[in-house]
Amino acid sequence: MKSSSAANGSPVTDQLEKIHETFKTLNEGAVAAYIPELAHANPDWFGIALVTASGHVYEAGDSGQAFTIQSISKPFVYGIALEDSTRTDVMARVGIEPTGDVFNAISLEPGTGRPRNPMINAGAIATTGLVGGKLLQTRAKRILDSLSAFAGRPLALDEAVYRSESETGHRNRAIGHMLRNFDILKEAPDPVVDLYFQQCSVSVNCRDLATMAATLANRGVNPVTGRQALRGEYVESVLGVMGSCGMYDYAGEWMYRVGMPAKSGVSGGIIAVLPGHLGIAVYSPRLDPHGNSVRGIRVCEELSRVMNLHLLTASHGQASVIRLRYDATQVSSNRMRSPADAAVLRDHGAEIKAFQLQGHLSFSSGELVVSEALAHLDSTQCLILDLKHVPEMNECAGRLLYHLHLRLRQEGRHLIFTHAAQCGSLRRYLKIKLGAEFEGSYRAFDDNDTALEWCEDIILRRHGATPCDPAQVTEDYEIFAGLSADEIKVMRGHFQRRHYRAGEVVVTAGGPADELFLVHAGRASVTITPSDHVAKRLAAFSPGMVFGEMAILDRSPRSASVVADTDLICDVLNVADFDRLDAAAPQIKITILRNLAEGLSRKLRRALRENSVLGR
Amino acid sequence: MKSSSAANGSPVTDQLEKIHETFKTLNEGAVAAYIPELAHANPDWFGIALVTASGHVYEAGDSGQAFTIQSISKPFVYGIALEDSTRTDVMARVGIEPTGDVFNAISLEPGTGRPRNPMINAGAIATTGLVGGKLLQTRAKRILDSLSAFAGRPLALDEAVYRSESETGHRNRAIGHMLRNFDILKEAPDPVVDLYFQQCSVSVNCRDLATMAATLANRGVNPVTGRQALRGEYVESVLGVMGSCGMYDYAGEWMYRVGMPAKSGVSGGIIAVLPGHLGIAVYSPRLDPHGNSVRGIRVCEELSRVMNLHLLTASHGQASVIRLRYDATQVSSNRMRSPADAAVLRDHGAEIKAFQLQGHLSFSSGELVVSEALAHLDSTQCLILDLKHVPEMNECAGRLLYHLHLRLRQEGRHLIFTHAAQCGSLRRYLKIKLGAEFEGSYRAFDDNDTALEWCEDIILRRHGATPCDPAQVTEDYEIFAGLSADEIKVMRGHFQRRHYRAGEVVVTAGGPADELFLVHAGRASVTITPSDHVAKRLAAFSPGMVFGEMAILDRSPRSASVVADTDLICDVLNVADFDRLDAAAPQIKITILRNLAEGLSRKLRRALRENSVLGR
Repeated sequence: MKSSSAANGSPVTDQLEKIHETFKTLNEGAVAAYIPELAHANPDWFGIALVTASGHVYEAGDSGQAFTIQSISKPFVYGIALEDSTRTDVMARVGIEPTGDVFNAISLEPGTGRPRNPMINAGAIATTGLVGGKLLQTRAKRILDSLSAFAGRPLALDEAVYRSESETGHRNRAIGHMLRNFDILKEAPDPVVDLYFQQCSVSVNCRDLATMAATLANRGVNPVTGRQALRGEYVESVLGVMGSCGMYDYAGEWMYRVGMPAKSGVSGGIIAVLPGHLGIAVYSPRLDPHGNSVRGIRVCEELSRVMNLHLLTASHGQASVIRLRYDATQVSSNRMRSPADAAVLRDHGAEIKAFQLQGHLSFSSGELVVSEALAHLDSTQCLILDLKHVPEMNECAGRLLYHLHLRLRQEGRHLIFTHAAQCGSLRRYLKIKLGAEFEGSYRAFDDNDTALEWCEDIILRRHGATPCDPAQVTEDYEIFAGLSADEIKVMRGHFQRRHYRAGEVVVTAGGPADELFLVHAGRASVTITPSDHVAKRLAAFSPGMVFGEMAILDRSPRSASVVADTDLICDVLNVADFDRLDAAAPQIKITILRNLAEGLSRKLRRALRENSVLGR
Repeated sequence: MKSSSAANGSPVTDQLEKIHETFKTLNEGAVAAYIPELAHANPDWFGIALVTASGHVYEAGDSGQAFTIQSISKPFVYGIALEDSTRTDVMARVGIEPTGDVFNAISLEPGTGRPRNPMINAGAIATTGLVGGKLLQTRAKRILDSLSAFAGRPLALDEAVYRSESETGHRNRAIGHMLRNFDILKEAPDPVVDLYFQQCSVSVNCRDLATMAATLANRGVNPVTGRQALRGEYVESVLGVMGSCGMYDYAGEWMYRVGMPAKSGVSGGIIAVLPGHLGIAVYSPRLDPHGNSVRGIRVCEELSRVMNLHLLTASHGQASVIRLRYDATQVSSNRMRSPADAAVLRDHGAEIKAFQLQGHLSFSSGELVVSEALAHLDSTQCLILDLKHVPEMNECAGRLLYHLHLRLRQEGRHLIFTHAAQCGSLRRYLKIKLGAEFEGSYRAFDDNDTALEWCEDIILRRHGATPCDPAQVTEDYEIFAGLSADEIKVMRGHFQRRHYRAGEVVVTAGGPADELFLVHAGRASVTITPSDHVAKRLAAFSPGMVFGEMAILDRSPRSASVVADTDLICDVLNVADFDRLDAAAPQIKITILRNLAEGLSRKLRRALRENSVLGR
């Protein structure tokens, strides 16, 4: 359960309170009296609530005042009907066309008797008839449980209102019989109408309704409790009928002025949903002639205006899908290359391009990635798509990436994914929809560094270099550059040769820094797993390179562990022997220190350059 | 003019072609015959086009086939009416409620005679009457120019269809007289109806229509030409009436199955708009009984389904608004601190928090920033909001940030913006809406490094330290650590003391690296302006520090310029003198090299740590 502490002192709460203040003097309209019990509402009650798709709750006024849900139950019960029946069945019994009629119009289609839509009473009663369960009790519980899941707390019936509706709902009973007559209801109508009265008599408050609306905004998952209240595939349909039929004969004006799918109820409640973002609820029992809450309508209009919530504005928090782009001349792998290889990568590293993507991948964001990739196809040998910041992608985006992969492969180019493990839906999609063929053919790496190395090796091979000879053995250590043969011989006298098996820990994080390692054969690396649990290779060592020098220089404990990636042979120099060189062989020491400093300087330049590319 | 080369070999084109292939055998429906000239259309013509809000054009089939725009002109002319009249005037003459009626229903409001909405013929004719201009010719040109701006090329009339409509449009002439009777038209009706026939007879193709739809998706700016075709404030209204009234009596079904504002025409065209993302057009002249293109409807349904384009799905490319968050213990300013100050910042640097924001800031993304900020308020002394990746923010988001600023200030905390100059709308908003009071009270920096330094100074002062003494003078250079007093004396003999004025260039990028600089008094820094034109401070030097050592170590030319920020005094060591130390004073050289290497190691550790935070 997420906290709503964000609301205290938040400017959003201030905003709601200001709007509450503005409209609380608006006293037009009259409390509904057609159900006697509703007439008891205090006409001054006035609550506003807004719940975001991330579960933040903001409230103003009488947002905790209980009232009956009435017609606002209709879209939610339509959702239950979709879950409990087939979509075809639902469509056969209730249409989805707006009528432009008032809320209690009967509006049956000539001939079939099918109610025009589930938001008018006839359609709602037909919908209630589709709720699963044999016994009336079971079905009533199904409705109450579903509404409770939406609200995020156990809801209950207002018995007084229920009795009042039941005693006076002759028009709805007539509708029930009419539906039975046309065989839209397949059972005795009275119990279904009774069930309908029950669903209308569920007691809620403004906060409940805003949470219910936010659950629709959040693909059916209650953003406060995290519980799925309606399967995502049906949310769109529920919002669709709210969008076209939710405001009765005020639908056009509503779409024009407010621009969110909405539903109002005769008790004075109204909800509005901005899909993906938030839900709003207002409660004020005075109604206009359309049967909508006077203040409710005005508050929704005002919120939509001041918060720019209109669904049809083009600007609901869009961000570029490509968060960062770089090539391998700007950010290279941590694998150290020979001067010849490094020169090849300097000249051709730009053929390796990397896009860090962000956000949910849909058609339009996927299209941007694909068109950007294709626009630079000729100069791209390898394209790395870093999915670390992609929480999800839909099937359409997956298909676009699949086809991009085919296109690249056909031209002998490569598409590489990193952090794809994070993006469960990509893997699922690739596996289920595209089959083993694709699974086997595309490349995925856990981190960008190994992906970059793989791509660099491809570029090196294309340009005649032979990177990464696994059998390479050397005693030509980088820190000995400039030493004479005799001087090197002196140094060799201090070495201790050590053998490690692949996987063995060579240096332990936190341990004392008393040795300097020169790689004679094999490979080693430093990989950390930061708090986000995504492993990251910080350094990679191959023959000729030195490691362990930084801790020695600043006399600090080892900051990270070094692990042998393959069987590994190192020449190890003890720090005491290294210190003794000061007096014993100062010229050797000067050369080695200068080489160490030069190496550090080179690495620092590279780190700062990358730092700048990454957007410090 | 952007290129549409992205379309060649794109998987999006493949997708359109596949859908074209699937539906081209669908031969239901009949070509409209009520205007004789329309009956000449080849019933097999079939084109599909999709244009993205970034201006990419994708096509399949007969997307270049010319036909007359017919009713698809209605929403665009409604946009002209909104621009040329007041909104109140437009609303007084044409309603915005759907009728659920067929396309040529007259549907006037009882009493007033106001047509229900601008998508039915009566409403469209009333709308055409609101196009500005005295002469019929002027008004015809106004319409043609506007449609051409939407299409991105000069459009022309199909004279044959125009004559045919004009000769047979008795029903529309009758409507004209009815509108004159109710005083909805304030002038002789025949010329207005004639103008209406002209607007319906404009010749377009599928590519034009998709571009027009994409222009609506792109807040009225044609994404291919970059030209504003309709003021942004009216686009929402145009899409609103398309959403509620665009598909006549098929509106509910359309909202349910396709979920995009749309408009169809009797010649067989249909457009659909996904605001912020794309426009679609289909052309196929065979119509269903509703007057909509049979293939057009099916293709739109299929595109919406396979590309997940439904407006009410919650997932159109949303990304987290907070792209990156860090505190000053993870990423610190380049200002080097004394060991005592560094210790304070190590302990309290987490009180400086930075959020890198991304995307257009709206209510919901702004709310996320504000609630995140408030959730950690107690542990935040300074909050830096980096707006580099925020292209725009709306007024509502600006207001939220303003209130966040007030809240922080009230508690003696600080809100700091960086890269705010990029975000023109923020400055405009803050200046115009909030007045000079706010302008003067909030802090904005060009780059994050100077912002971090400013915040660090606040933390240091809060904890009793006195950072940044501008009068500090030292000869206690970091690279001399461990040297004896005598050895330091030897070194001083090699110095040349130099004075620079504030703003003077000390080291020039590309120049030879023949000197090492020790800062005696004053400050200097390295600032680069990369290709994105956003200045970035890479290093900052204060008394005691060394600069210029890296180029000396790797014998490369200077990689960046160093500029004196204040009046500056340096002790300068020539590289030849430095080299001569090898033989003359090897123990001194060893100590200095070790100090240099240690300094580089420290900077490298920091760069790698930041690198990792920044998401390499």
